[in-house]
Amino acid sequence: MSTELKPFVEHVEMQGHIVDSLLLPKVLDAILSRGGGYHIHEFVLGEKQDNPSRVRMEVQAATSAQLEAILAEIHPHGAIPTDSKDCVTAVADIAGAYPDGFYCSTNFRTQVRLHGEWVEVEDQEMDCGIAIDSEGTSARCVAMTGVTLGDRIVVGRRGTRVFPPESESRRGNLFEFMASPVSSERPKAVSVREVAAAMKRCRANGEKIIAVLGPAVVHTGGAEHVAHLVRQGLIQVIFAGNALATHDIEQALYGTSLGVSLDHGLPTEEGHEHHLRTINTIRREGSIAAAVQKGLLTSGIMYECVRKQVPYVLCGSIRDDGPLPEVITDVLTAQTEMRAHIPGSGFCLMVATTLHSIAVGNLLPAWVKVACIDINPATVTKLMDRGSTQTVGIVSDAEPFLRMLVAELGKVVAE
Amino acid sequence: MSTELKPFVEHVEMQGHIVDSLLLPKVLDAILSRGGGYHIHEFVLGEKQDNPSRVRMEVQAATSAQLEAILAEIHPHGAIPTDSKDCVTAVADIAGAYPDGFYCSTNFRTQVRLHGEWVEVEDQEMDCGIAIDSEGTSARCVAMTGVTLGDRIVVGRRGTRVFPPESESRRGNLFEFMASPVSSERPKAVSVREVAAAMKRCRANGEKIIAVLGPAVVHTGGAEHVAHLVRQGLIQVIFAGNALATHDIEQALYGTSLGVSLDHGLPTEEGHEHHLRTINTIRREGSIAAAVQKGLLTSGIMYECVRKQVPYVLCGSIRDDGPLPEVITDVLTAQTEMRAHIPGSGFCLMVATTLHSIAVGNLLPAWVKVACIDINPATVTKLMDRGSTQTVGIVSDAEPFLRMLVAELGKVVAE
Amino acid sequence: MSTELKPFVEHVEMQGHIVDSLLLPKVLDAILSRGGGYHIHEFVLGEKQDNPSRVRMEVQAATSAQLEAILAEIHPHGAIPTDSKDCVTAVADIAGAYPDGFYCSTNFRTQVRLHGEWVEVEDQEMDCGIAIDSEGTSARCVAMTGVTLGDRIVVGRRGTRVFPPESESRRGNLFEFMASPVSSERPKAVSVREVAAAMKRCRANGEKIIAVLGPAVVHTGGAEHVAHLVRQGLIQVIFAGNALATHDIEQALYGTSLGVSLDHGLPTEEGHEHHLRTINTIRREGSIAAAVQKGLLTSGIMYECVRKQVPYVLCGSIRDDGPLPEVITDVLTAQTEMRAHIPGSGFCLMVATTLHSIAVGNLLPAWVKVACIDINPATVTKLMDRGSTQTVGIVSDAEPFLRMLVAELGKVVAE
Amino acid sequence: MSTELKPFVEHVEMQGHIVDSLLLPKVLDAILSRGGGYHIHEFVLGEKQDNPSRVRMEVQAATSAQLEAILAEIHPHGAIPTDSKDCVTAVADIAGAYPDGFYCSTNFRTQVRLHGEWVEVEDQEMDCGIAIDSEGTSARCVAMTGVTLGDRIVVGRRGTRVFPPESESRRGNLFEFMASPVSSERPKAVSVREVAAAMKRCRANGEKIIAVLGPAVVHTGGAEHVAHLVRQGLIQVIFAGNALATHDIEQALYGTSLGVSLDHGLPTEEGHEHHLRTINTIRREGSIAAAVQKGLLTSGIMYECVRKQVPYVLCGSIRDDGPLPEVITDVLTAQTEMRAHIPGSGFCLMVATTLHSIAVGNLLPAWVKVACIDINPATVTKLMDRGSTQTVGIVSDAEPFLRMLVAELGKVVAE
Repeated sequence: MSTELKPFVEHVEMQGHIVDSLLLPKVLDAILSRGGGYHIHEFVLGEKQDNPSRVRMEVQAATSAQLEAILAEIHPHGAIPTDSKDCVTAVADIAGAYPDGFYCSTNFRTQVRLHGEWVEVEDQEMDCGIAIDSEGTSARCVAMTGVTLGDRIVVGRRGTRVFPPESESRRGNLFEFMASPVSSERPKAVSVREVAAAMKRCRANGEKIIAVLGPAVVHTGGAEHVAHLVRQGLIQVIFAGNALATHDIEQALYGTSLGVSLDHGLPTEEGHEHHLRTINTIRREGSIAAAVQKGLLTSGIMYECVRKQVPYVLCGSIRDDGPLPEVITDVLTAQTEMRAHIPGSGFCLMVATTLHSIAVGNLLPAWVKVACIDINPATVTKLMDRGSTQTVGIVSDAEPFLRMLVAELGKVVAE
Repeated sequence: MSTELKPFVEHVEMQGHIVDSLLLPKVLDAILSRGGGYHIHEFVLGEKQDNPSRVRMEVQAATSAQLEAILAEIHPHGAIPTDSKDCVTAVADIAGAYPDGFYCSTNFRTQVRLHGEWVEVEDQEMDCGIAIDSEGTSARCVAMTGVTLGDRIVVGRRGTRVFPPESESRRGNLFEFMASPVSSERPKAVSVREVAAAMKRCRANGEKIIAVLGPAVVHTGGAEHVAHLVRQGLIQVIFAGNALATHDIEQALYGTSLGVSLDHGLPTEEGHEHHLRTINTIRREGSIAAAVQKGLLTSGIMYECVRKQVPYVLCGSIRDDGPLPEVITDVLTAQTEMRAHIPGSGFCLMVATTLHSIAVGNLLPAWVKVACIDINPATVTKLMDRGSTQTVGIVSDAEPFLRMLVAELGKVVAE
Repeated sequence: MSTELKPFVEHVEMQGHIVDSLLLPKVLDAILSRGGGYHIHEFVLGEKQDNPSRVRMEVQAATSAQLEAILAEIHPHGAIPTDSKDCVTAVADIAGAYPDGFYCSTNFRTQVRLHGEWVEVEDQEMDCGIAIDSEGTSARCVAMTGVTLGDRIVVGRRGTRVFPPESESRRGNLFEFMASPVSSERPKAVSVREVAAAMKRCRANGEKIIAVLGPAVVHTGGAEHVAHLVRQGLIQVIFAGNALATHDIEQALYGTSLGVSLDHGLPTEEGHEHHLRTINTIRREGSIAAAVQKGLLTSGIMYECVRKQVPYVLCGSIRDDGPLPEVITDVLTAQTEMRAHIPGSGFCLMVATTLHSIAVGNLLPAWVKVACIDINPATVTKLMDRGSTQTVGIVSDAEPFLRMLVAELGKVVAE
Repeated sequence: MSTELKPFVEHVEMQGHIVDSLLLPKVLDAILSRGGGYHIHEFVLGEKQDNPSRVRMEVQAATSAQLEAILAEIHPHGAIPTDSKDCVTAVADIAGAYPDGFYCSTNFRTQVRLHGEWVEVEDQEMDCGIAIDSEGTSARCVAMTGVTLGDRIVVGRRGTRVFPPESESRRGNLFEFMASPVSSERPKAVSVREVAAAMKRCRANGEKIIAVLGPAVVHTGGAEHVAHLVRQGLIQVIFAGNALATHDIEQALYGTSLGVSLDHGLPTEEGHEHHLRTINTIRREGSIAAAVQKGLLTSGIMYECVRKQVPYVLCGSIRDDGPLPEVITDVLTAQTEMRAHIPGSGFCLMVATTLHSIAVGNLLPAWVKVACIDINPATVTKLMDRGSTQTVGIVSDAEPFLRMLVAELGKVVAE
């Protein structure tokens, strides 16, 4: 295998904590897995743990396509060609789609080279294109549907570079945040403590905390804990769907969630109608806020949000009943609305929702820390697969987890 | 408990196979569970299994509210007041919401009494209101957002009656369709045979088969099996999301699904971009049909649908990339579009999707048989909770199940 | 179907709350499902909820085998032949096996007719035979391996009757114990409250509480809660395996559980050896009790058991390391040891173990209430399938659940 | 952190494909995570993919205990002290336990230094001690309960070295076996093809294939597929429990598995007794083999094993009914019996069993390839956590998977 001719070559370089962050091993593995070869020209391993390492190597491939595939794969790990040139752009010839060959973004910090200078890409988001402004001095991620005719869009990888996270959590024993495998069999008090600590650090840094919530938060009895966090100023924005809001309001109006009494846990079959009557009632009032103003809605998560002016984005889904007036039924509009709330956020608490967690995970840059709590390991695994360095997955039960989180946060926050 | 005064009473009656269909036991249980009492005035148990039974009883409660709650709960089990009157309506005073006290529909066959006659409700769907036409001679289910100013909407339960399914599958050993608990530990060949038989009966009756599909159908390699069913005329309409269609087209264009090669099962990391490039390519063509016409798309589920003119409804979701041009991004529009395809259908095959399965389950009347196949028992359970008599849940793996289903159907269908 | 000749008949009768307890409906369904027929000769439906009902009917079948199959199936629902005779026995011709045609027990209260008298069966346990003493005056369940040569074993169903539970929880609204579907989406505070109330009632009745525990109790950090319950006298016997005991002692000796620190949640890879060193240490001491006596073991579940003289049965499993000296490596001996602790027990708390929960569930009579807590719905479902009337399934996380349970019990118990 | 004094040092070295196999990165990460430091003295990165790399470094720690902990953790990754000495032993002072400080084995290939020579350890198995023979020339793993008084047991890590697998599957694109994440969303035909290929390679090498089977193999209808594999000579030994064997024989005798008919999938409630009657019948015959000889048992997995003289080890469990005569009720005896069958095996197929899969996984050396098939991702994950380089996890349904496997193997095997 290694003896076959590999005449197509490119020189790449990497630097930073590339060994213990696993970036270099991943790059070498990727080259070999795809049938390529490498020749190390220079390698400096940081003698001590604080010294960065540096490598320069030749990547070899048997065909041009193979070389291209290898370079595409190792680029997001920070391996960039030695001879950098300015990035290349093409003009969007139709609205709502990129030109062919467009550069596809990651959620890692990214730079593009413009007029010989490396320029930071703004609004970093995965699976987007990069648009260059008309002066050619700034760059930002743009969603496919956001492309307008004539936009200059980056094509190819030339003149782009990516800064994958160096797993700073692993550096020394400062463990600000754990990066652990998904398992239900971990000490839960520790997980709670770490999430609480991350939330406090986030607020201390003046950053926003996003809460992404599914209806099981209410079904399990956790609405009061979230309401408490809103009151305490520990949640700055809520992303959810029609179900979370409806069940929360249903609980406030009827004492049930999807018809199950939160006092005695029994299904009240007529209560099966409660959620529909709840939605109808709010629709008759015109909005959740109107229902609060009128004194109709006097407790729960949505009530606290209205009272504390904590914004919420309720995203529509095809399984929705109603929906509530505030629900954004167009999913692209809902995405845009969520995007608007992300800048300035430092932490994202996702509880008991697969759909919304993945949707929000798609929008977050890699430097926003995420804790995903769900009783179903599959949800946690799915989310972590998309960004393991930023996400902590915790397999646990919504209400008991939130109860412990409130207690832990209260140890310091409560004045 | 039973000695306390229960002065509030209502006389109700039930008939049919109310004992072995569990309807009467459920009614008695519901009365007792809610603190009420009953006095049986007449009970005739069908002497033989073909004879219907009949019961008349007095329902007793301590308060008016308790009586109301009991009657609301037993009504969907077929227990209706002895002295029937015409149904009562109220005029919709605002658009997009029902009047207060609106009657909330089930997915069971329902009748309303108009001018002394019992009239069948059309477009039966759960969690809707019932609108009476201006002549007061016909009735139909109407979604909350479909209410227009001035509509006459049924309020209260008076003059309405519900015909819950009598579990006809349990009657004798004709087992046309099994009603089994959700378990992964059942003989799979039997499940496949039963689904195949139900699909054939459905087609033989000239009814349509709906397929509701999640992306794991493609990830596991099952797209070719579904394409085969479309070609064979065994699927009349497909409900899915952006992901299913994108991965299906990605497989046709790149040989991968979410970047995983369907030939050797390995992730091609650059392939991670394939799905985005796939969407962009189709958006540049304008539509999936245009891509087929142009000869760009030449295989897969969507290709066969275009070629065979099998309609599909692609419903948007907030986690969508792109999306593809045909995706309906407004969820209410998507619901309406799906509703339009339901009349005339007799069977619904749901594979590997929680979101769309529940959405479609919300729309189907109780007499459309459903088979829900998912490797995650939670999905199957969730769906069955909503309509256990119509749904068969099968915990299994998408591709192997579809492979066996195609083989089983082929035993007869293949000419 | 119903017109075919069914010449084989047997007259059976049932009485009690047979309608709202679903017993009669199940019997009718079973007859029809197996192709039989019935003719109701007498039916008295209790007029009010406190009155028992009574039915006498003729069961019809096309063949003798079919009739036999039907009678076998309806017998455990309380349907017994009208003309009772004494039970029939056969002499065990070999040790460790029943005679052919042996009666197979349920876990419901059972009686056998001896000399014209109905005699209560002792040591009620499912899947056993019934042995009659040499005087022919008493009866008890005997496991297959417990049969000795010459034992008189009941054969056939003649002269046996079963008293299935009448779902007394459904009678009225006194809900002493909920009987709910398995779901992670229920208000958890209610579940905790109900388990706590059942435990208190059990102790107030002077009955024992059995705890069946899996290692995740320790992994999640719940050992201290269980230790607390032992100290408080709320657990009278523990059934577990080598893993639970080892991880509990590992935590006491090393502060880790399977090498994961319970203080900071991080795996200590060398700690991977801790469990083996723990077992070796206790083996060197000779027993857990010896390690406590020596002052080596000073905290945790096992420590409290030794100190409080709460007995424990540690059952071996083929995946065991070591095991600890007290582990009973022969599974039949372990079963026998567990059986010895069951008489006098009224409640069984099963947390985070599939293997031991099912094993203990096999041994318990139907009147011992069971709460099964596991984060995996499959475990809870499996157990409930075996005895839904006695078992409450709660899908939740071990440590947070136990923490809430201790807090709830403490509201009254703590002096 | 890095400035604090770290006076405790040890020099270690590693060689091989230590970068792309992630061994070096893991070692550096482990050092830093535990608060240690390192100073690289020499590092040679293999210039091309076929060249091994080599590193020599100083490991630094603040305390002696910290240094010890670090060295313990990096040792299984192949990091060994530069100045090797002979291993140290202590004499077992009691039977059935190791001396304090015993060396705890991994399942990786291991050597110990005796009289200046590196000697291969025999019977490699994780979580064991290493015994040196009386001449001091050979070494073998010995289970704790296998220790006899006077055995010379290795203590400490001195003079031991471990050869962790170098992920040879990742070397080049020869992918003989995939090492992929656990996911139900992979192309199943590819997984089947890879397992089939691995089984064929194993047999071509003259190595044995072990099958570890749970009862769901029979419940789902897969017994005939396994029977086929036994007939074809593709299984050399079966490890299972009482349940698998009983349900297999139940199917042969009654056509049901746990009372569910494999022909029509319906539960036959009386059939609930079938498994007990099955066990009783075999116990009356004395053994499974006797039942085959007598012509009582004429099909199924166990029948084929008897006929083809394929050995089986049936391990007892506390949840067993009966059990069958061949079941080994003492778990330590059962472990010993399984151990005896492992030498010479090259592949292990685990289907639908958590308990037995983990038990067997504990016994296998790292070089026996394992495929673990289960519909529950938790089972697959649990097993892979214990040896990810040797195990391929496949989330799929037992019967359909086995059906496809038989078909795939038949393409070549069938003569």
